[in-house]
Amino acid sequence: MRKIEHIGIAVKDLEVSNLIFEKLLGVSSYKEEVVEREGVKTSFFENGPNKIELLQAIREDSPIAKFIEKKGEGIHHIAFDVENILLEIERLKKEGFVVLNELPKKGADNKLVAFLHPKSTNGVLIELCQEIK
Amino acid sequence: MRKIEHIGIAVKDLEVSNLIFEKLLGVSSYKEEVVEREGVKTSFFENGPNKIELLQAIREDSPIAKFIEKKGEGIHHIAFDVENILLEIERLKKEGFVVLNELPKKGADNKLVAFLHPKSTNGVLIELCQEIK
Repeated sequence: MRKIEHIGIAVKDLEVSNLIFEKLLGVSSYKEEVVEREGVKTSFFENGPNKIELLQAIREDSPIAKFIEKKGEGIHHIAFDVENILLEIERLKKEGFVVLNELPKKGADNKLVAFLHPKSTNGVLIELCQEIK
Repeated sequence: MRKIEHIGIAVKDLEVSNLIFEKLLGVSSYKEEVVEREGVKTSFFENGPNKIELLQAIREDSPIAKFIEKKGEGIHHIAFDVENILLEIERLKKEGFVVLNELPKKGADNKLVAFLHPKSTNGVLIELCQEIK
């Protein structure tokens, strides 16, 4: 847990929200990327040592579509940068956290990722991410 | 908007949640602080260049009590570190954002703070904060 890698924000329309966050952060999105398996299109903004990730559903069964249906647009997850995701998963399991992906999967922006269930973290969906070298 | 200063997380019981985030982040809370005007007790954790702020309501009319009643525990706001909060408020107003505090107020952890209304930011409550020197 070296820093907040990014905050993931669920949005309905990526083009509209790209403009909002461009104005807010004073920079343009540096990358858009579709993650087919998750049914999302993402857009990334740099903010000093951190990033903001916007996520728009591209299918009705996407977790982002379900999130927006239930809660509306807003903050979806916090992602922490980790040096070694396998060691971090082991450590967190021993501490009693519910790890949703014991084997990390390929996420957006060149990362290996794993999620912790919000029920073990005060309702916060937490992502661990390790850069793929 | 120089970096994510902290993520604010609404919790029901600060003592319980302090233990959860201590295990998650691998560090202890470095400060607890009551902000009377907001009706909250806060607890701060360092995470590299960023922080996590836990917020527990100490009164029924606290915004955090209302948030938890409506949405449950979870992420409440993102705070961005700004160099000059008055200039940033002016800039964001011109860009069309709804600034809730045109005059910044004293927040926790030695900061001047101002909030943007979530309706202008995709449902995300955003705090600007400038360190008081």
